Amino acid sequence: MGLLERINSPQDLKKLTYSQLDELAEEIRQEMIDVVSQNGGHLASNLGVVELTIALHRVFNSPEDKIIWDVGHQSYVHKLLTNRKKEFKSLRQFGGLAGFPKREESVHDCFNTGHSSTSISAALGFAKARDIKKENYHVVAVIGDGAMSAGMAYEALNHAGNSDSNLIIVLNDNEMFISPRVGAMSSYLNKIRTAPGYDRRKEELKNFLTHIPAIGSSVAKAAGKAKDGLKYFLVPGVVFEELGVTYLGPINGHNISNLEEVFNRAKLKKGPILIHVVTSKGRGYEPARQRPDVFHGVGPFNKETGEILKKDTPPSYTQIFGRTVCELAARDDSIVAVTAAMGSGTGLSEFGRLYPHRFFDVGIAEQHAVTFAAALAFGGLKPVVSMYSTFYQRAYDQVLHDICLQNAPVVLAVDRAGVVGEDGPTHHGIFDISFFRAIPNLTIMAPKDENELRHMIYSAFTYKQPVAVRYPRSEGMGVKIDQEMRLIEKGKAELMREGQDLTLIGFGPVVYMCLQAAEKLVTLGIDATVINLRFINPLDENLIVAWALKTGRIVTVEDHILNGGTGSAVLELLQSKGITNVKVERIGYKDYVEHGSSAVLHRIYGLNPEQIVKAALRLVGKQREGKASG
Amino acid sequence: MGLLERINSPQDLKKLTYSQLDELAEEIRQEMIDVVSQNGGHLASNLGVVELTIALHRVFNSPEDKIIWDVGHQSYVHKLLTNRKKEFKSLRQFGGLAGFPKREESVHDCFNTGHSSTSISAALGFAKARDIKKENYHVVAVIGDGAMSAGMAYEALNHAGNSDSNLIIVLNDNEMFISPRVGAMSSYLNKIRTAPGYDRRKEELKNFLTHIPAIGSSVAKAAGKAKDGLKYFLVPGVVFEELGVTYLGPINGHNISNLEEVFNRAKLKKGPILIHVVTSKGRGYEPARQRPDVFHGVGPFNKETGEILKKDTPPSYTQIFGRTVCELAARDDSIVAVTAAMGSGTGLSEFGRLYPHRFFDVGIAEQHAVTFAAALAFGGLKPVVSMYSTFYQRAYDQVLHDICLQNAPVVLAVDRAGVVGEDGPTHHGIFDISFFRAIPNLTIMAPKDENELRHMIYSAFTYKQPVAVRYPRSEGMGVKIDQEMRLIEKGKAELMREGQDLTLIGFGPVVYMCLQAAEKLVTLGIDATVINLRFINPLDENLIVAWALKTGRIVTVEDHILNGGTGSAVLELLQSKGITNVKVERIGYKDYVEHGSSAVLHRIYGLNPEQIVKAALRLVGKQREGKASG
Repeated sequence: MGLLERINSPQDLKKLTYSQLDELAEEIRQEMIDVVSQNGGHLASNLGVVELTIALHRVFNSPEDKIIWDVGHQSYVHKLLTNRKKEFKSLRQFGGLAGFPKREESVHDCFNTGHSSTSISAALGFAKARDIKKENYHVVAVIGDGAMSAGMAYEALNHAGNSDSNLIIVLNDNEMFISPRVGAMSSYLNKIRTAPGYDRRKEELKNFLTHIPAIGSSVAKAAGKAKDGLKYFLVPGVVFEELGVTYLGPINGHNISNLEEVFNRAKLKKGPILIHVVTSKGRGYEPARQRPDVFHGVGPFNKETGEILKKDTPPSYTQIFGRTVCELAARDDSIVAVTAAMGSGTGLSEFGRLYPHRFFDVGIAEQHAVTFAAALAFGGLKPVVSMYSTFYQRAYDQVLHDICLQNAPVVLAVDRAGVVGEDGPTHHGIFDISFFRAIPNLTIMAPKDENELRHMIYSAFTYKQPVAVRYPRSEGMGVKIDQEMRLIEKGKAELMREGQDLTLIGFGPVVYMCLQAAEKLVTLGIDATVINLRFINPLDENLIVAWALKTGRIVTVEDHILNGGTGSAVLELLQSKGITNVKVERIGYKDYVEHGSSAVLHRIYGLNPEQIVKAALRLVGKQREGKASG
Repeated sequence: MGLLERINSPQDLKKLTYSQLDELAEEIRQEMIDVVSQNGGHLASNLGVVELTIALHRVFNSPEDKIIWDVGHQSYVHKLLTNRKKEFKSLRQFGGLAGFPKREESVHDCFNTGHSSTSISAALGFAKARDIKKENYHVVAVIGDGAMSAGMAYEALNHAGNSDSNLIIVLNDNEMFISPRVGAMSSYLNKIRTAPGYDRRKEELKNFLTHIPAIGSSVAKAAGKAKDGLKYFLVPGVVFEELGVTYLGPINGHNISNLEEVFNRAKLKKGPILIHVVTSKGRGYEPARQRPDVFHGVGPFNKETGEILKKDTPPSYTQIFGRTVCELAARDDSIVAVTAAMGSGTGLSEFGRLYPHRFFDVGIAEQHAVTFAAALAFGGLKPVVSMYSTFYQRAYDQVLHDICLQNAPVVLAVDRAGVVGEDGPTHHGIFDISFFRAIPNLTIMAPKDENELRHMIYSAFTYKQPVAVRYPRSEGMGVKIDQEMRLIEKGKAELMREGQDLTLIGFGPVVYMCLQAAEKLVTLGIDATVINLRFINPLDENLIVAWALKTGRIVTVEDHILNGGTGSAVLELLQSKGITNVKVERIGYKDYVEHGSSAVLHRIYGLNPEQIVKAALRLVGKQREGKASG
């Protein structure tokens, strides 16, 4: 590890020769493969940007110059080059380096990212601040081609293109993709990048010239030869140019000196510049090159063979969801599925294979996905939208207006609800109950286990109204999966256990934590009722009220932020029924949750049977004190 | 009113001659001017689409064919032509016709709109449903040029352009605008529409041809003459064409037979088509033509003179906000303001005039606005983002991640919080407390009156962290405005009145309703405490707890949905302090709120002093019963 060892700041890069840089690139790749094979993480994208990152840090002066990494999962090379190589082994572990840029971690991380397509907005913000303060630095956004499908990137381009601020956008166009490319912009980039497209355009010009009277085909031939002129005229990137952004490219993203030359050229230009860089995802590690989708976000693997280390676990909620939707779709050809670049992540790959014409992956475009689904429903189909909890934050208005306000019968599958582990705070799904619960007619469900998820998905389609079903990113409980799907009556909770001393109410798989806590409480002489809430809206008012009155003590448990969550719904119910004298404890998160394994996070943030037991003891204790003093 | 009288369905339009259609257009304009001058509403945009709407309904067969009105404020002509002319006088009044398309109102309204840029997504949803069900109808989205700045429109275009589904997008390009055009897409449309742009492109081609060896300038001249060929090649709308959408236009949107011809042509084409129609906002009514911004959304006016009927009211919250920001900006040149096509609506016009380089209207692009502001803050400035409550729903993820998660010191001005009146359910700001309250480190404030708003805006800039300040769309209370701005300590509520029987807690101007209720309660022998909450986060725990314990009864009051709102925050506080035995009533909305004047809505939905008195009496009564039986 000779060279990387010596890089303590990006300045040190500037002393190296190109052949040393190649050596460094190799060392960086090895280090990333080593660490990610242990910790899991985003590998393929980082392997693709090694030379790009080196070139950026040689031409620009971070932290004075600002480099913003879109999404940020491709920032590992940047982290290694900005004095974080020692901590790199702690990547994505609790208390260790984050898997995304983080201002708190380094002055070289000027803007935190996590969700896609924010980088151009952020870059323009820095650029305008610089201009207003009459400062003098460069601002660079590094954005992938996938992220260009999100509306937000276009909103920012639309603003940048009409502005005179200097700003450099590096469009990192991977040759390989997370999931099949979608969208017209992808096709367009592809057309620029590949020769046939270029030829086709040349052909069009030839045809045109042939039709100009008094010029004829000899001119057309001459034009065909005039390659430079043609290139100038048939400028690739005309869409960007027309929107006021100077286009440079496409250029090879693995040639450091070429990259440096273009970056230096861009530094001299005025206004917004887009540099189209073509990189190869997974470069330098054959397993990742072969399967860039698998090595996009990957768990621990054998670095010699590229074999993913799999534990022998029950099927995940995601898998059961996918299977269930396929089964339902086989019986009912009006069922269609919509996702936003999360086809494989939400378990819909098989659905897409079986029903390609009923499957819509619209790209990173959550807003469009949701509104599109509402119209599919009004067009007579039965859509399910499947996205991660955290990405519904991008489509809140559309869920509220286009689905719920007009009561469109759409099933919203809310995958990765609760903490998601190593991806950290930008990816935890711990806000959806609060923001969905404000919507009057949205039915919100969560299954206690994967078998119940199956029944819930089936049931959701029968309610003929907007329904959200939230479930975690994890393996299931390993319970038996019923062959036949069962209708769950809307608004009915499940009484799991009866006890006279207090009531534990869980929403989602935390119900099993409640059951474990109840077992433990028995040994302490306390007899607990356990309710599997199943529905946040509508609540099973009768059941909750009955047990609230019987036991006088409630502990609510949720894999979610406390403000406005499940416990809050229970408090509102008790208030609306005029019930006081019931002591309540709420277990969930009080603040943002950092990155780390879900198991560690549940322990650190107090979501576990032990904390439920403690809360129960507090209630019982307090109550006794109350009686003693009363 | 001869002709309009006879139009009972769009079918009736097909029997009329072109000269009759011109007569009908005139009648429609008169009817709209009549009704809007009484009820207020969106006038200029509707005057601009009279011929366009007639032509659409003559070429397409609604309701079989689907016409989706983007935003929907321009659907009055459509309503008049689809058998709602009798109810038209009830436009925007409680129980009357909505100001936007509404499925519940007519089969001709196939998709509800309100917020901009959803129409292409919806149209594509209908188109895909049609194709899957092997049905046969046309789908048309009518979208304004302003709405093309929103990312969502691009997301939908990106999907449509890569799809083979037939779909017609009518781009309604107004010659006049709500507010100055912003964004590169607007500039681009303008370039297409105006001759100089076209000439410039021709010039470029000439230059190119001149540089092809062995062709020279004679050819260039020939090319200059070959207008048709040039037109074909230099196709206007190349940006749309490159994204896979066939472009037709630009065409005159006031010539019915021309429009019909193009619509008929579009019906025969395959795939997505964009028809660029140029219309004139306010056409046919001189005051609206002269001041299309004023007559975009307008209150009652004198239809002879075009004079707006103004009541002699105190300055609005919006005005006080705008003035305060200007004053602060005069003292501190790091203060900058960002809005998303709501510059005049949020009171920032004067700021824009005084500080053009520190004012950013980014177009209809809420997501970008928020993230852009976060980076402005990290670039060393003090940004205030000003948008309506309902539009923050479009930027929830960005507020959560880009502002709050990285603790960017940005002030979020949340205008039009609470019910907004006649614009109805898509525009009421009754969800923000719930969705903002879930965010751990977002300080949330609401002033009781316009003077306190002034102090809050000043204070918000001093907290150096994310702050949201919510205030309603209405005139202020008419209180005296302090010259000097005062720091409000973060998290401090205001005790307005002390009484031993119960505590009324208001958030925002509803505090005055609480004071009125308290006066009334005195006459009933009940002595109420009134707390001006000021902060939802952080809550003034000590004050609330102290009065909860002293009085044992609390009524919370908010211009907001109840689920997860202010009352919920108070319940959570009491729970977290282990306080039971406090009876609580929560006053706010239980469901969506329809359209109507705010005064009527407050009455119908029970947000008024009388309801507060009733809630207080219920609490006192119940408590007495409790004591009697205890």
